[in-house]
Amino acid sequence: MKKIKAGIVGGTGYAGVELLRLLAQHPQVELGAVTSRQQAGVSVATVFPALRGHVELSFSAPEPAALRGCDVVFFAAPRGVAQAHARALLDGGTKVVDLSADFRLRDVAEWEHWYKQKHTAADLVKDAVYGLPELNRERIRGARLVANPGCYPTAIVLGFLPLIEAGVVDAQHLIADAKSGVSGAGRKAETRLSYSEAGDNFAAYGVPGHRHWPEMRQSLAQVAGHEVGVVFTAHLTPMIRGIHATLYARITKEVDFQALYEKRYASEPFVDVMPAGSHPDTRSVRAANVCRLALHRPPEGRERSDTLVVLSVIDNLVKGASGQAVQNMNLMFGLPESAGLGQVPVVP
Amino acid sequence: MKKIKAGIVGGTGYAGVELLRLLAQHPQVELGAVTSRQQAGVSVATVFPALRGHVELSFSAPEPAALRGCDVVFFAAPRGVAQAHARALLDGGTKVVDLSADFRLRDVAEWEHWYKQKHTAADLVKDAVYGLPELNRERIRGARLVANPGCYPTAIVLGFLPLIEAGVVDAQHLIADAKSGVSGAGRKAETRLSYSEAGDNFAAYGVPGHRHWPEMRQSLAQVAGHEVGVVFTAHLTPMIRGIHATLYARITKEVDFQALYEKRYASEPFVDVMPAGSHPDTRSVRAANVCRLALHRPPEGRERSDTLVVLSVIDNLVKGASGQAVQNMNLMFGLPESAGLGQVPVVP
Amino acid sequence: MKKIKAGIVGGTGYAGVELLRLLAQHPQVELGAVTSRQQAGVSVATVFPALRGHVELSFSAPEPAALRGCDVVFFAAPRGVAQAHARALLDGGTKVVDLSADFRLRDVAEWEHWYKQKHTAADLVKDAVYGLPELNRERIRGARLVANPGCYPTAIVLGFLPLIEAGVVDAQHLIADAKSGVSGAGRKAETRLSYSEAGDNFAAYGVPGHRHWPEMRQSLAQVAGHEVGVVFTAHLTPMIRGIHATLYARITKEVDFQALYEKRYASEPFVDVMPAGSHPDTRSVRAANVCRLALHRPPEGRERSDTLVVLSVIDNLVKGASGQAVQNMNLMFGLPESAGLGQVPVVP
Amino acid sequence: MKKIKAGIVGGTGYAGVELLRLLAQHPQVELGAVTSRQQAGVSVATVFPALRGHVELSFSAPEPAALRGCDVVFFAAPRGVAQAHARALLDGGTKVVDLSADFRLRDVAEWEHWYKQKHTAADLVKDAVYGLPELNRERIRGARLVANPGCYPTAIVLGFLPLIEAGVVDAQHLIADAKSGVSGAGRKAETRLSYSEAGDNFAAYGVPGHRHWPEMRQSLAQVAGHEVGVVFTAHLTPMIRGIHATLYARITKEVDFQALYEKRYASEPFVDVMPAGSHPDTRSVRAANVCRLALHRPPEGRERSDTLVVLSVIDNLVKGASGQAVQNMNLMFGLPESAGLGQVPVVP
Repeated sequence: MKKIKAGIVGGTGYAGVELLRLLAQHPQVELGAVTSRQQAGVSVATVFPALRGHVELSFSAPEPAALRGCDVVFFAAPRGVAQAHARALLDGGTKVVDLSADFRLRDVAEWEHWYKQKHTAADLVKDAVYGLPELNRERIRGARLVANPGCYPTAIVLGFLPLIEAGVVDAQHLIADAKSGVSGAGRKAETRLSYSEAGDNFAAYGVPGHRHWPEMRQSLAQVAGHEVGVVFTAHLTPMIRGIHATLYARITKEVDFQALYEKRYASEPFVDVMPAGSHPDTRSVRAANVCRLALHRPPEGRERSDTLVVLSVIDNLVKGASGQAVQNMNLMFGLPESAGLGQVPVVP
Repeated sequence: MKKIKAGIVGGTGYAGVELLRLLAQHPQVELGAVTSRQQAGVSVATVFPALRGHVELSFSAPEPAALRGCDVVFFAAPRGVAQAHARALLDGGTKVVDLSADFRLRDVAEWEHWYKQKHTAADLVKDAVYGLPELNRERIRGARLVANPGCYPTAIVLGFLPLIEAGVVDAQHLIADAKSGVSGAGRKAETRLSYSEAGDNFAAYGVPGHRHWPEMRQSLAQVAGHEVGVVFTAHLTPMIRGIHATLYARITKEVDFQALYEKRYASEPFVDVMPAGSHPDTRSVRAANVCRLALHRPPEGRERSDTLVVLSVIDNLVKGASGQAVQNMNLMFGLPESAGLGQVPVVP
Repeated sequence: MKKIKAGIVGGTGYAGVELLRLLAQHPQVELGAVTSRQQAGVSVATVFPALRGHVELSFSAPEPAALRGCDVVFFAAPRGVAQAHARALLDGGTKVVDLSADFRLRDVAEWEHWYKQKHTAADLVKDAVYGLPELNRERIRGARLVANPGCYPTAIVLGFLPLIEAGVVDAQHLIADAKSGVSGAGRKAETRLSYSEAGDNFAAYGVPGHRHWPEMRQSLAQVAGHEVGVVFTAHLTPMIRGIHATLYARITKEVDFQALYEKRYASEPFVDVMPAGSHPDTRSVRAANVCRLALHRPPEGRERSDTLVVLSVIDNLVKGASGQAVQNMNLMFGLPESAGLGQVPVVP
Repeated sequence: MKKIKAGIVGGTGYAGVELLRLLAQHPQVELGAVTSRQQAGVSVATVFPALRGHVELSFSAPEPAALRGCDVVFFAAPRGVAQAHARALLDGGTKVVDLSADFRLRDVAEWEHWYKQKHTAADLVKDAVYGLPELNRERIRGARLVANPGCYPTAIVLGFLPLIEAGVVDAQHLIADAKSGVSGAGRKAETRLSYSEAGDNFAAYGVPGHRHWPEMRQSLAQVAGHEVGVVFTAHLTPMIRGIHATLYARITKEVDFQALYEKRYASEPFVDVMPAGSHPDTRSVRAANVCRLALHRPPEGRERSDTLVVLSVIDNLVKGASGQAVQNMNLMFGLPESAGLGQVPVVP
């Protein structure tokens, strides 16, 4: 079978290098081009010695010609790049998976509010499919442009989804307390991200308003069929990879929640409902494309509260970014959904 | 002025070594004895080279004689030790600050439920004063036995206290999502605490029921004047020191929350209400006896939710343990409350 | 082709779980049994949730019957276990790869000196082949019992090997300054390994005498054809995986050292000689079976010293343990040496 | 007694904030001004919330007027700033402690070689005293301009000093293998310093030539009375504070090395020679102005090598920077050398 030729725009960030790791091991993909404005002409393995022996390409300048002939292009570039370049690729028959936020919000005005800039490809928004396979699998199969979800929304929407679908909690007062490893902020030169600042330290950030908030609201509203209310707090955690979302929902109807989750995700290849009482840790998904969930109803055996606690963990760079992007590509090209995504988590 | 002679029972744990650090710098305290069953006869500085030149004592066997003549004894030992030995000390005129959980719960049956053992000094419980100065300052001044609060309850009760006092939130549905550095688990040989397990990893623990839950409920109920409902989730965070509690409360009455907090804590030497919009990080209190608080009402400028978010940080070993114990000792002996507690946080 | 049936003795340590990760992905291996005294009867995925969906076995009690029918058994158990059980397996036609130190030293008296116990299978020592493929490949192919090298000796011997072979440095005064992640100490409940002790901290250990010292001396002497002198210092580093060995050798004959190394390792699948001037970092080999080397002659452009500096990095759990064990198994069974070892390092 | 009025130029870096921590607790110092180009007008406590309640100043623009009236000015600014501004201060009678490298090398040509720029205050170099009190105490007392040593040279020179003074090792072939926490690189926005890059990772850097190399050579040569040869390798370690230098010297004359060190440093307030066989860890000096040393002669009890191993640890920001600067200030102003430097190391 002919391999899919894949291009990556913006290969020097963490989503980019993670795509390289995954695609280099994908049995049905061949890397066509990896672009980088800054590193054009430099071999990928020079920038990322970890890829020595696995990726032979050099970075190309981000010119349209570089991506010619690619069957799929992943945008792992900052906001705005996919807006500028997706149309030409789509018109040329190339499918696009955008890992940035450019096409995630269906409401362009909302997007412009949160990102404080004009959207330059608003007409493409309606064509874009939000790439959460557990929510939109069939539409992804038919998509030519997939908006790959943000890391927090992936962990949080998968965590709340069965409850909202079943209508058994107060969807107006959801609370999502999420903790992310530092790689979630990207491969950036910022003082606040330095080891000396982020190490042995813990803080919330963006509490007054985080751009992943409208994204998770949109997905949860899609599930609910109406607006939802969610309070979202993000925290920077002194670890490299991983998101742990601790979710709180007020129960409005008592059901067997464990059974509800197990049934909802029974056939999902990348969502793992753990046994009741589990405490999933982020390293149990490190470097792998899986979301693990566990349910609690604290405190056990005393006057139970009416609040359900859901624990949801992903690797922000895999199920929260590049792994999910590959999963979406698999769906778009009719490949087995798990192709190239069999990595076993790395423990310890 | 004659110095207070202080003894420490159980000086090899983290609360113990932190007491040593603080008391060695306290201008009005002289270390009388530090006991340790395992290290009896070994110099303190051999076990903790950091104390070379600061502490000249050797560990004593935990015999009553060792503590004779102490004006105050700190129990930094595991649960049960203070129960067994406090009475004799109190009878001899020594004041006691117990850093374990032995005397924290006023309801002995509740204590026995959570700690799954018989309380052997139940009659002392009524004499013990819960040592949160911001709540019980006057009673601490007159106490001979102080139950030093747990680390989580300190951060969480200080965070909720003004709201509960003012009666402006739904006290039946409080949510406390707290993250602790690994030192909170003590100086223990446990696989789950090893660097290889706890490093680059994040997980909740004890969600079905944590022993700090009845303790924070008790204090919040004291403030409220009635039972409260709180869901508490603890998380193990890959850092050494620090607790970050993210607190959620449903507003029942709109007031100026920032002003409410600033007023409540205006004269507190060790509670710092930060400017509105702040994100306190745990390192801003590292090695210092302070709790920093910040308030948020997310999201700013959109449809605001009716949920208030309070961020509360402490160093679990200082304001969450040994620093608060020294603060209590200062109160019990009529010293300036801040004596020996002027350490500037260590950043980075 | 019929798959090789592999057993693991001692599957709950880090070498064990890493073998599980690697063998679960090995195309020509089927897991037959994993033993654990403590976890017998418990499913592997319960102890290591990371393996959910990848390993279906439960731990077996460490009885001979459990391993019956295995083509190869890996001992990932503490010292002494392989000594006690290898003979029965070998006699039954099972090949053995021992990841402990039981069979690494050819001189039994030396072994007993360092390990302070009687060797109970001294007669097997002469049959054991030291499993460093870059040194003993042909003998490994014919071996039925392979002593898998220690992590430090792997990094250090590969780093010095070309120099000693070529006889271009003073082999009596080698210096190996090595730094290891905490997982090198194993999955143990020890206070010194806890996050609170090992985190944000750095120290040497075992300087007066480390058990890997006679092992590296033995291999270097094998290469040199005579005794060598090496000073070895191990350091505990606040990271999970990785060894970085910084090697110093006094040059006795000037040659093109870069060319010497590149030629020596040109056909080695798992040794990567980096471009001159490189600074390999441990994460560039994280989770992968590779040793990266770089050479320096400091300081550049000033009066150069006569000392060559070699930088050598491995993942202590892969090339330093379980990956090398699989590499040895591949050789012993005539499989492609790289089978099942194509993992791309995980960065960041 | 009138307090010394101290100014800090460049108060937003790590040396600056550490000076603020130390000086805020110094009984004989009053902070006069802290300058910062970027943060001029902003309160210090806004940039460093850890200093809330301890430092009331705002950052001043780096204008000469800001520092008028200071008795001493600390330059904690990047290279070149002290060169540009020290003369005016000195001429005005202000003493200067420069924590940058501007005045560390006595040979201006050598300085210009390593720093690749023209020295603009070469005439001041001869007046500057290299501020290692253990080497130059008397000259520091009389100095008006002190060049505060680099962090690596402090740890390494203190480690080798007794050996070189005594002439008992081969001073042409010293090896210094040093490991530094990330704060040693400063408070900078650099990708390589980010938590995601520097965390769970270890690498050497600057092996071809590090700017601290000529500095340590200069001091060791001063001690030896002739040129010395030292190979120096620096490594970036995933911790925040701390330097661990592992030093190797070939013995040329057998003496009682432990006694040699104990005698040499017997009256030094900030050098601690640990008992023979110790393994000092960096946290034993965290946040404190002390260098701990230990000696080894490996391997014990076997054929001993002729190499002595010295372990030397400091906190790079205290004895390696700001603490030593305060120590120098104390000497320059005739204060007790330990004034304001009594901090107990923070463990864990």
